[in-house]
Amino acid sequence: MRVRKRPGAEELVAAHPEYVVQDPEAWKGRWHQRFGNDHPIHIEIGMGKGQFITGMAAAHPEINYIGVEMQISVVSIALDKLIECPLANLQLLHVDGSELTNYFSDSEIDQIYLNFSDPWPKKRHEKRRLTSHSFLEVDETILRPSGEIHFKTDNQGLFEYSLSSFSKYGMILEQVWLDLHHSGYEGNIMTEYEEKFSKKGQPIYRVEARFSDKTKK
Amino acid sequence: MRVRKRPGAEELVAAHPEYVVQDPEAWKGRWHQRFGNDHPIHIEIGMGKGQFITGMAAAHPEINYIGVEMQISVVSIALDKLIECPLANLQLLHVDGSELTNYFSDSEIDQIYLNFSDPWPKKRHEKRRLTSHSFLEVDETILRPSGEIHFKTDNQGLFEYSLSSFSKYGMILEQVWLDLHHSGYEGNIMTEYEEKFSKKGQPIYRVEARFSDKTKK
Ligand SMILES: C[S@@+](CC[C@H](N)C(=O)[O-])C[C@H]1O[C@@H](n2cnc3c(N)ncnc32)[C@H](O)[C@@H]1O
Ligand SMILES: C[S@@+](CC[C@H](N)C(=O)[O-])C[C@H]1O[C@@H](n2cnc3c(N)ncnc32)[C@H](O)[C@@H]1O
Repeated sequence: MRVRKRPGAEELVAAHPEYVVQDPEAWKGRWHQRFGNDHPIHIEIGMGKGQFITGMAAAHPEINYIGVEMQISVVSIALDKLIECPLANLQLLHVDGSELTNYFSDSEIDQIYLNFSDPWPKKRHEKRRLTSHSFLEVDETILRPSGEIHFKTDNQGLFEYSLSSFSKYGMILEQVWLDLHHSGYEGNIMTEYEEKFSKKGQPIYRVEARFSDKTKK
Repeated sequence: MRVRKRPGAEELVAAHPEYVVQDPEAWKGRWHQRFGNDHPIHIEIGMGKGQFITGMAAAHPEINYIGVEMQISVVSIALDKLIECPLANLQLLHVDGSELTNYFSDSEIDQIYLNFSDPWPKKRHEKRRLTSHSFLEVDETILRPSGEIHFKTDNQGLFEYSLSSFSKYGMILEQVWLDLHHSGYEGNIMTEYEEKFSKKGQPIYRVEARFSDKTKK
């Protein structure tokens, strides 16, 4: 997703340290303290404008959410939503998903969401895909044993690749949806991209994949 | 697939022991002898009327094929094709796919094809699906270590189920196709069902799944 630089984004983010964490390294291993409870922590990597994660946080007050996004202009749009409708169980993190071991200690996270991740269709860009091997290593490290990644996309090539990538990593595909919106799945919260692409009639793919006990170091 | 009983099917099959193996137990562990060479052996379970397996046998003379089908009327239709166009590298087997360990010894088979297997959509019929756990145990036993199952279907529910079933069994999804006919895949040989359903515009799904070294007992 290319987004035009939003004037004032940095200032807005800096003005809201209660929502956009300013010193994320300092919270490594201490996120439960920050939330003030010991509820499970779910993160979304590449949250975009935040429609999914704010919707999830509002629907599930018994879970703590952290939205990770590396483009500051996009973070600032998610922040707008949070300023308008405050949520005590949602924090935003302006960092790169490849570096999450700097901000979370081993097994600190209970679940990871990936939604409509950039497809990077060229083979030579495989390493940039959020479902490629090195990202899975990071995810496995910060996730509890047997933790899951829940991944949605409309992109056929990325979904084909990701099923195989998860499997080759040693993950178990707990459940697969090849047309989520006609599957009877309940409690789905749409992302911005999901609204846009499903309106065009494209099927939405979804998978719940679990790291096996065996692969966790 | 329901097929009307074909009058004379049993007699036709009995009259061609050179194509439809009459005493399959006797060949257990000796299939290479039967073919008179040591080429790899690929089988299709539920070959139906045999369009795929006869096409494969004609295209790949360096591979031995065995078509397995439990309905005799259907076997007899595949036999018609073989009588018309003889193929030295193709044998037919009128047996149930759940009992293949009676006819093949451990690791005797190099590859297994499943095409448009009956979907058995009801949860209580799960055990009848050719991609369910107990069939995979049979398949793993007769397949060489790291042997593969190549599975095609138009059925969304069966494909979703099968990806997860393979994965939970410990198999690796080497490659997944969510729209085979628009994927650039070369050398595809269509089955009867594939021609029928792809004409209706339905996507054809395909997966190549490998038993891992670890799961082989
Ligand atoms: C195509 S958008 C999808 C946004 C949202 N999840 C949705 O479904 O509407 C992908 C987002 O992921 C972000 N992103 C891509 N790679 C990232 C990474 N390594 N770390 C953090 N965010 C990333 C991009 O900046 C972009 O905002
Ligand atoms: C839906 S048809 C598909 C036929 C063919 N593969 C095609 O793609 O056109 C499924 C076939 O599998 C056969 N079959 C189902 N269960 C079987 C089993 N356990 N052993 C052997 N054949 C089986 C059925 O008799 C039927 O002919």
